[in-house]
Amino acid sequence: MYYVGIDIGGMSIKGGLVSQDGKLVCKETIKTATYSKEYSIAQDIKVLINQILKHNDLTSDDIIGIGIGSPGSINSEEGVIRYANNIPMTNVKVVSELKEYFPVPIRIDNDANCAALGEQIFGAGRGYNNIVFITLGTGVGSGIIIDNKIIAGCGGAGAEAGHMVIISNGMQCNCGRKGCWEVYASATALMRQTREKMAECKDSMMHDIAKKDGEVNGRTAFIAAKAGDKAGQEVVDQYIKYIGEGLINMANIFRPEVILIGGGISNEKEYLTNPLQKMVDDCTFGGDSSPKVIVKTASLKNDAGIFGAVALVYAN
Amino acid sequence: MYYVGIDIGGMSIKGGLVSQDGKLVCKETIKTATYSKEYSIAQDIKVLINQILKHNDLTSDDIIGIGIGSPGSINSEEGVIRYANNIPMTNVKVVSELKEYFPVPIRIDNDANCAALGEQIFGAGRGYNNIVFITLGTGVGSGIIIDNKIIAGCGGAGAEAGHMVIISNGMQCNCGRKGCWEVYASATALMRQTREKMAECKDSMMHDIAKKDGEVNGRTAFIAAKAGDKAGQEVVDQYIKYIGEGLINMANIFRPEVILIGGGISNEKEYLTNPLQKMVDDCTFGGDSSPKVIVKTASLKNDAGIFGAVALVYAN
Repeated sequence: MYYVGIDIGGMSIKGGLVSQDGKLVCKETIKTATYSKEYSIAQDIKVLINQILKHNDLTSDDIIGIGIGSPGSINSEEGVIRYANNIPMTNVKVVSELKEYFPVPIRIDNDANCAALGEQIFGAGRGYNNIVFITLGTGVGSGIIIDNKIIAGCGGAGAEAGHMVIISNGMQCNCGRKGCWEVYASATALMRQTREKMAECKDSMMHDIAKKDGEVNGRTAFIAAKAGDKAGQEVVDQYIKYIGEGLINMANIFRPEVILIGGGISNEKEYLTNPLQKMVDDCTFGGDSSPKVIVKTASLKNDAGIFGAVALVYAN
Repeated sequence: MYYVGIDIGGMSIKGGLVSQDGKLVCKETIKTATYSKEYSIAQDIKVLINQILKHNDLTSDDIIGIGIGSPGSINSEEGVIRYANNIPMTNVKVVSELKEYFPVPIRIDNDANCAALGEQIFGAGRGYNNIVFITLGTGVGSGIIIDNKIIAGCGGAGAEAGHMVIISNGMQCNCGRKGCWEVYASATALMRQTREKMAECKDSMMHDIAKKDGEVNGRTAFIAAKAGDKAGQEVVDQYIKYIGEGLINMANIFRPEVILIGGGISNEKEYLTNPLQKMVDDCTFGGDSSPKVIVKTASLKNDAGIFGAVALVYAN
C-alpha cells in the first residue's frame, strides 16, 4: 500500500508515491496548465496519479491516502484552494472533486504548512515540537508548528510570514503591501539584487559566472562571494541580513526550538545558516537569558513538497 | 473566597482583590523599588497582599489563588522572572518565594499574555478562540491566544511582537535591534513623534495643548488632530500607519478572529481602531477571499493587568 503526495507549483505539478515505511518510490511531473471553471486542477491531478499508478503496475486500490500541497490560501478543513498568488485559481474544491475518483482520505494544505509537517515527520525537524519552517524560493513561505500543531490561522489563511513588512513603505510586493519580507529575502529578490549589483560593478566575477550559467540565478552571487569577489560578497551579506531580519522577528514572536530553512537557496547550507545563527543568537529578545533558537537547513530538498503532502495523511 | 491579581509595572506594583464571580473588589498600589538578590520583588508583593487583606478584614485563608503579570521574559512553568527590560530583575523565583507565605495556587506570566487571557475571560475577547492582543504603552506588548491556548514560545520567551522589526536598520530599540515596531508604535514613540513635529511646527495647536496639560503626552497629538490641527493630524496619521504595519504583519502571520488593542493609547477607541480596521481589511494577504480580522479596543482598561493576572489562576 502507498501514499500519494501531490506538490502544486507555478510551473509544474509533482506527484510522488511513498511507501508505508516512508520511502519515495517514484516521482513524476506534469506541467501546470491554465485552469478555469470547466478545467479544474483536480483533473490534472487525477491524470498525474493515474499515470504514476500505471507506470508502477498499481491500481487505485493500492493507495491509502492522498496529500496535496498548494501555494496560496487554502481552506484545509473544507479541502478548498481559496486563492493562489501565482496560479489563477479561486475557490477550487480540489478534495471533493478528487474524492470522486479516489475514495481514500484526501487532504490539502498550504505547501509551506505541508513542508513544515514533512520536515517534522520525515526530515530535519524530527525530535522538535516547535518549528518555524521558512522556504526561500520564488516567494518566502512559512509553516509553523507549535506544540506539534500547525498554526495556520483562521480558515488556514495565516502563516504568511513572507508578507510581514520588514521595511515599511519599501519595495512593492505582489500582495499589495510595500516592503514585505518576500520582496527582499526570496530567491527572486536575490536575483534582482544580484542584477542590480552587476549593473553597478562591471568588473565583478558575477558577470562571468552568469555567462557560464547562461543566466543570473540564485547561486551567482554566492559563487562569486566564495571566490573572493567583493561585489558578490556585498550582495550575499545584504541578502542574508534581510533573511535574518525576518528570522529574528519570527524567533521573537514564536521562540521555537528550531528555524528550518528550505527552498532553493537553502542549498548554500552552513554558508547561509552560520551567519543567520549568529544574527539570531545576537539579536533575539532577552539574549543569553532566553532559550536558544537553532537555525538549520531543511533536509527534504526537492522532495519536500511530496513528503510534506504525504505527511498530511501519513500522520493520521 | 477571593483571587489576588498582581500587576508588576516599571513605576508601581498594583494588587487587586477579585471575587469568585469576577468582580474587582479592591485595588491598591505600591511603588516599584530597586531590587537585588537580598531584596526581591516577592517581598514587596507579600507586603502589598497583606496590606490588601488587612484593609478588607481578610486573612490569607480567604485567598484561593494568586496570579502575577510581569513585563519581560517569564518562565511561567517554573514561576521565574527571567529578564525584564525596564526593571532590573534576573532569574527571580517569585512563585516559590511567595509560596512560603501563601500556600495557594500561584502563577506568573508575561503581562501581555495575562492581558490577552484576561480579555478573553473577562473582557472584549469573550467568545473568541483566536486572539492577538496588542498593548500600546511604554513599550508594545503582545499576547497571543490560538485555539484557546496562549502561544508564549519556548520557556515563555516568545510573543514579543513589539520586537518585530518593521523598518530594517531603523531607530535604535532598547532590545539592541534597530527598527522594532515598539520604537514606532508605543506611547513613548508617539510622544517622541509629537515632540519632533512640535519642534518643526511652531504654530501647531499641540504647543497650547501640551502647555495646558503641563507636558507632551500620548493624547497631545490626538486632541490637536480632532480639533483640526494639520500638524497634529500628520502625527496621528503616521503613528496609526506604524501601528497598522505591525497589526497587518500579525494578521498575516496568525490570521486571528480578532486583534484587541489595549494600553493607554487605546482610550482613543474608534478614532484609532476605525483606520486600523481599514488598513487591516485593505492589506491582509488574500484580501476579501480570506477570513476577516476584526480590530477592536480591549475593554479592561486600567484593570487589565489585575484581571489578566487573576485569569492565570481563575481559568484553572
